[in-house]
Amino acid sequence: MKRFVLMALASCALAIVAQPAAAQSKAKPRARDLGVPFDGTPGPLNAITDVNGVEVGHRTLISGEGKLKVGVGPVRTGVTAIFPRGKASADPVFAGWFTENGNGEMTGTTWVDESGFLYGPVMITNTHSVGVVRDAVIKWQFEHGPPAPLDDWWSLPVVAETWDGYLNDINGFHVKPEDASAAIENAHGGAVEEGSVGGGTGMVCNEFKGGIGTSSRKLSEKAGGYTVGVLVQCNYGIRSNLRVAGVPVGKEIPGPPIWDSDTGSIIVVVATDAPLLPHQLKRLARRVTLGLGRNGSISGNDSGDIFISFSTANAGAGMSKTPAAITILPVEKIDPLFAATVEATEEAVINAMVAADTMTGIDDHRVEALPHDKLREVLKKYNRLAETK
Amino acid sequence: MKRFVLMALASCALAIVAQPAAAQSKAKPRARDLGVPFDGTPGPLNAITDVNGVEVGHRTLISGEGKLKVGVGPVRTGVTAIFPRGKASADPVFAGWFTENGNGEMTGTTWVDESGFLYGPVMITNTHSVGVVRDAVIKWQFEHGPPAPLDDWWSLPVVAETWDGYLNDINGFHVKPEDASAAIENAHGGAVEEGSVGGGTGMVCNEFKGGIGTSSRKLSEKAGGYTVGVLVQCNYGIRSNLRVAGVPVGKEIPGPPIWDSDTGSIIVVVATDAPLLPHQLKRLARRVTLGLGRNGSISGNDSGDIFISFSTANAGAGMSKTPAAITILPVEKIDPLFAATVEATEEAVINAMVAADTMTGIDDHRVEALPHDKLREVLKKYNRLAETK
Amino acid sequence: MKRFVLMALASCALAIVAQPAAAQSKAKPRARDLGVPFDGTPGPLNAITDVNGVEVGHRTLISGEGKLKVGVGPVRTGVTAIFPRGKASADPVFAGWFTENGNGEMTGTTWVDESGFLYGPVMITNTHSVGVVRDAVIKWQFEHGPPAPLDDWWSLPVVAETWDGYLNDINGFHVKPEDASAAIENAHGGAVEEGSVGGGTGMVCNEFKGGIGTSSRKLSEKAGGYTVGVLVQCNYGIRSNLRVAGVPVGKEIPGPPIWDSDTGSIIVVVATDAPLLPHQLKRLARRVTLGLGRNGSISGNDSGDIFISFSTANAGAGMSKTPAAITILPVEKIDPLFAATVEATEEAVINAMVAADTMTGIDDHRVEALPHDKLREVLKKYNRLAETK
Amino acid sequence: MKRFVLMALASCALAIVAQPAAAQSKAKPRARDLGVPFDGTPGPLNAITDVNGVEVGHRTLISGEGKLKVGVGPVRTGVTAIFPRGKASADPVFAGWFTENGNGEMTGTTWVDESGFLYGPVMITNTHSVGVVRDAVIKWQFEHGPPAPLDDWWSLPVVAETWDGYLNDINGFHVKPEDASAAIENAHGGAVEEGSVGGGTGMVCNEFKGGIGTSSRKLSEKAGGYTVGVLVQCNYGIRSNLRVAGVPVGKEIPGPPIWDSDTGSIIVVVATDAPLLPHQLKRLARRVTLGLGRNGSISGNDSGDIFISFSTANAGAGMSKTPAAITILPVEKIDPLFAATVEATEEAVINAMVAADTMTGIDDHRVEALPHDKLREVLKKYNRLAETK
Repeated sequence: MKRFVLMALASCALAIVAQPAAAQSKAKPRARDLGVPFDGTPGPLNAITDVNGVEVGHRTLISGEGKLKVGVGPVRTGVTAIFPRGKASADPVFAGWFTENGNGEMTGTTWVDESGFLYGPVMITNTHSVGVVRDAVIKWQFEHGPPAPLDDWWSLPVVAETWDGYLNDINGFHVKPEDASAAIENAHGGAVEEGSVGGGTGMVCNEFKGGIGTSSRKLSEKAGGYTVGVLVQCNYGIRSNLRVAGVPVGKEIPGPPIWDSDTGSIIVVVATDAPLLPHQLKRLARRVTLGLGRNGSISGNDSGDIFISFSTANAGAGMSKTPAAITILPVEKIDPLFAATVEATEEAVINAMVAADTMTGIDDHRVEALPHDKLREVLKKYNRLAETK
Repeated sequence: MKRFVLMALASCALAIVAQPAAAQSKAKPRARDLGVPFDGTPGPLNAITDVNGVEVGHRTLISGEGKLKVGVGPVRTGVTAIFPRGKASADPVFAGWFTENGNGEMTGTTWVDESGFLYGPVMITNTHSVGVVRDAVIKWQFEHGPPAPLDDWWSLPVVAETWDGYLNDINGFHVKPEDASAAIENAHGGAVEEGSVGGGTGMVCNEFKGGIGTSSRKLSEKAGGYTVGVLVQCNYGIRSNLRVAGVPVGKEIPGPPIWDSDTGSIIVVVATDAPLLPHQLKRLARRVTLGLGRNGSISGNDSGDIFISFSTANAGAGMSKTPAAITILPVEKIDPLFAATVEATEEAVINAMVAADTMTGIDDHRVEALPHDKLREVLKKYNRLAETK
Repeated sequence: MKRFVLMALASCALAIVAQPAAAQSKAKPRARDLGVPFDGTPGPLNAITDVNGVEVGHRTLISGEGKLKVGVGPVRTGVTAIFPRGKASADPVFAGWFTENGNGEMTGTTWVDESGFLYGPVMITNTHSVGVVRDAVIKWQFEHGPPAPLDDWWSLPVVAETWDGYLNDINGFHVKPEDASAAIENAHGGAVEEGSVGGGTGMVCNEFKGGIGTSSRKLSEKAGGYTVGVLVQCNYGIRSNLRVAGVPVGKEIPGPPIWDSDTGSIIVVVATDAPLLPHQLKRLARRVTLGLGRNGSISGNDSGDIFISFSTANAGAGMSKTPAAITILPVEKIDPLFAATVEATEEAVINAMVAADTMTGIDDHRVEALPHDKLREVLKKYNRLAETK
Repeated sequence: MKRFVLMALASCALAIVAQPAAAQSKAKPRARDLGVPFDGTPGPLNAITDVNGVEVGHRTLISGEGKLKVGVGPVRTGVTAIFPRGKASADPVFAGWFTENGNGEMTGTTWVDESGFLYGPVMITNTHSVGVVRDAVIKWQFEHGPPAPLDDWWSLPVVAETWDGYLNDINGFHVKPEDASAAIENAHGGAVEEGSVGGGTGMVCNEFKGGIGTSSRKLSEKAGGYTVGVLVQCNYGIRSNLRVAGVPVGKEIPGPPIWDSDTGSIIVVVATDAPLLPHQLKRLARRVTLGLGRNGSISGNDSGDIFISFSTANAGAGMSKTPAAITILPVEKIDPLFAATVEATEEAVINAMVAADTMTGIDDHRVEALPHDKLREVLKKYNRLAETK
């Protein structure tokens, strides 16, 4: 919280605070560090970037405090960009998507369904900034992007959102084209910042502070040695439903209600290097629901729970002008990828909540962080606190 | 187990043992009776039949033992019929369906999608008997059913299945048209038999004995006072993934593996008296996945996880020859029904496993029941054992 | 018609008249032979069997005449089997399906969607015989089929239907398991019998006699040299909507009405040797609607207009236990296959009507064949009669 | 063409020429006036506005000529707004949508699917301006719109597009938020301007000039007396496939090719006052494909053929906080609405081409109008020229 106040003081008017968390993020504990037990084996970063080639960039917009003045602030929002093969590549990836509850937006999905490919990044922002981000992606691709794979130049970007109007002046339209470009330019491999950053800046999850979270699973060599990485922008749920590692944490840490119903949304991006075709990637996207189920979600009416998955295998398949040789995973070998998707989704959501600090936004709305000590206490009460290194 | 042996001895050749569990079933404990904690308030029967009008009938086929002789036995299979408005009514119900993983069959669904109505019962049997049951439903409707609502007489029955080939001589095609008719004729309101009965006779769930399970939720008057009932034929999963009330029961009660992957399937029927339209019922069907997620499912490749939901409200809407007056629940009032679906699904699966006795089938394959004492012990270890009356 | 009377006289009771049309069929004119103009270039047989490996088999059941006696007759029905790689192969094909109007049944489609593969044949029969045919396919596969590709033996056959109750004792359930087997055993490459044969025996199309029809397109080498073949079991439509090559033939050849609304259905099977993936095959299936549009269809409420397409390319992809090398057609190269699907659908429907002879069935219901001379006359009136060789 | 030159001369730099066609449009012939025969009976305006309450507004942007200078021009684009209940109403309508080929965008559709409602207008613009229009709709709703029906204020606008980059500086992003507002403010009942106006300004259809077209059908009292109205923004197809009233007009009026494949797209909006539920409206949307089939479309890979339909019946259903009484059309009564949709789609496309004048755009790309005299000549050749009043 203090960090935020300092920021707000330091920023006059609408000054933008660029991702300050980078250096600190290594020091921040993640859910595993707190002793939350999860199934499966994560990759080295326990992040979506464990899938080779994936780059993530955030643009975080935090400024102003106090009473809402539409168009002025306070501002608690941002943009996140996820590039399957890095921003320097125009090579599309096989992709599939699924909606558990459609009170939300993900543009570009009819073309994903039709072509089987995702061309360009997945962008995530707030509900009322999807348009500006969408067109800005086109502009960036046109001006700075790699050569397009198609003859007549056009683009149908994939942009998703969750609603941050509890903390952010969402109807002030503070996200600008240059913020989308900045998220794109910031995209990099390696560790991914979590919590109140990028598109996740102003989000609320299970009535705790939410935002961006990530996790990954590395399969055994016997299971193919593939990696599955998940990134969530989590903004869904009510506290009483929250389970962590099966433990009824939400009920054990009661708090003043923020919502009277399951308001919010969660966007989930699933990446893998396993050679999956579009119809198989749809299957992966559908497994996200099972991960959310583990955490207690009921996917409420006000929630836009939309998931997209892609495979970085089969590079070049979408660039070829002639029939292309590709690889497909056998039907019977897909279960470990399903398990990995469920497990990494479960963990990414908890990582988002563990990483996010308490935040105060418009009209002094305040959303508390999930308290780490109390979380450990509850896990211990239910004999589910794992030993940590 | 002893019960089964006696049955087998008493039955020469292919004699059918008709539902013997009826009288005993009241004495059998259910998951709640064992102290498993669940969210929400069940209806009086904690069964799908808490939804007024719903009738359930089973036909159970158990005969033979020892080595598999295709066409002879052993037989461990059956048929279950669920009538939304009772078997005496031809009045269709609004319905919707969803597939989490499509390694299975549910006939009749294109017409459910198209018309928005379910005409007739939902039938559940084994994978290789879907056809015989389907045509038998048509025959029964033609000969004994109530007058058809449509002019030219035709029918597209809804018949679903899960695979019982581990215990049952599935390629012997032991289900006959008269077994389907018997399940239909046996349909009644009131308490529902659970465990190894009807279509669930030979099923395996999380590598314990599975079968039929049911549960319900009754909403508060403030939430509309509606009832949601769920019935499952559960045959999915591997033991290590099983969670009960969030507790890793599968890992805590290890056993000899039956499957090397998530083999099986689960058919789920969701009934409600809330006035939901077809597109809203699809939403209910999709929530089943979240209930399965709570129990640890990854919805493996070999699993046919197919769900159908219907509403008994708006009686007569499908019989009218002129525009019909109906009622629709507001979009914003649906969350309690979502929660009820998730919770009743979670409980119905555990009820199925709690009710099913250990069974031995073809080639002396033996599937152990979920041990009640051990289950309570594990729940206690994780501080999740509820007090029971 | 005379042929039918002779048949009926020669057959006592329920004797089955096996495909007598084989020898004559070469002599029968097809739509092109009558001067109907179509776009595109057909393959050598102008049949689905122009796609290498495809085999088609019919079993035709015709017996009895006069007043309907349920269970006795008259019988005007049958079964058609289409094997993508021939009946000797267990190697599945990539497949996709689509429903324009779902008042019908096609079993097995959830697994087609999920796996991306079609295992086994596509079977077509009457509405009330889907079940018997489905289970009979399993039995045939188990007893006579090639070794199954999967470990635990199970099958989810694809069986579709259209309703022949205007001519056939459909509630007499005259199709038996052995009829399904016979259709399978009769499957062969080469010319395909059209008209009132197999599953199409008792069908009515645009209030003329309908049934089985087929057509194909061979792409130029520049377009890849691929073949697209279409087979329809056509039973849809009302006469006033019928267009042939854009000409309002239905309005020009009025007749006594059979239906008061668009009753019937059409099942369409699209085969190709182009290397299409499941999501691309769904696209082909969706183009069938455009072909039906050319012929004037409105896809009425009572119509089950369900389409499935498959690709015989990528042999072995579904049999591999390890990641398999396959080929994918570029997104931008698919248009000629779309055009071929539309054109071959348009022609296959007209071929079915041109081939089908007038038939009398239950209660002396009589359905006239599309009169060839009158058709030519109308085409000439609209300056659309093509020169014929 | 002359009109355009004058406009260009009169406009210095980027001056916007606001809808000049209004006064003239009454004098312009429509397809029927030229003697094109169509099935069915249109409403009084033969326009989507025959459905009571529907309002349509255009904003047309035409400026500059000669060589493309990205960001400067030439500009040939615009925005069209369709309000189901007029722009003064916040009352949502039941809606459904369908994609025949998904190379395009229609935002907001996951919420249409989920809620069954369309909240606000359908907007249509060019491919690269979807974002700006989307966010502008939110801004307009927030600032000028009627009170929102939902508690927390948010919006997920429906915005669709087709690609006008052959004539328009599409990567110059000339559509501004105020253009979207202007289209909204211009919305009115009564006659609808067709041709090169609004979102349709720079469109190409079957390699003739395309744009906005509309048509309607009025059902007989026996069929319910309902109205179906269709509006298209048509930009699809290649000339050789074009059929008008079944006549191969495209082949008969050859011209220099613009595309080497089926480039473009078509957005279709279907309105009705029949009391259809969301799942029934999906059925209407699917019938659009049949209308396009009549006109010869193959729905090419580069085409975004996306359709949305809504019903203005059941006013207030989406505003109620308690279960609402609504009306549903019986399943068996829907065929006349299907026919109306097919017929009005067929006619609206031809109306768009008949109304659009020849246009020259970027780099002097010139797209010829469908020549009226030649069209009549060809219809006459094929004996399909209807008498006109």
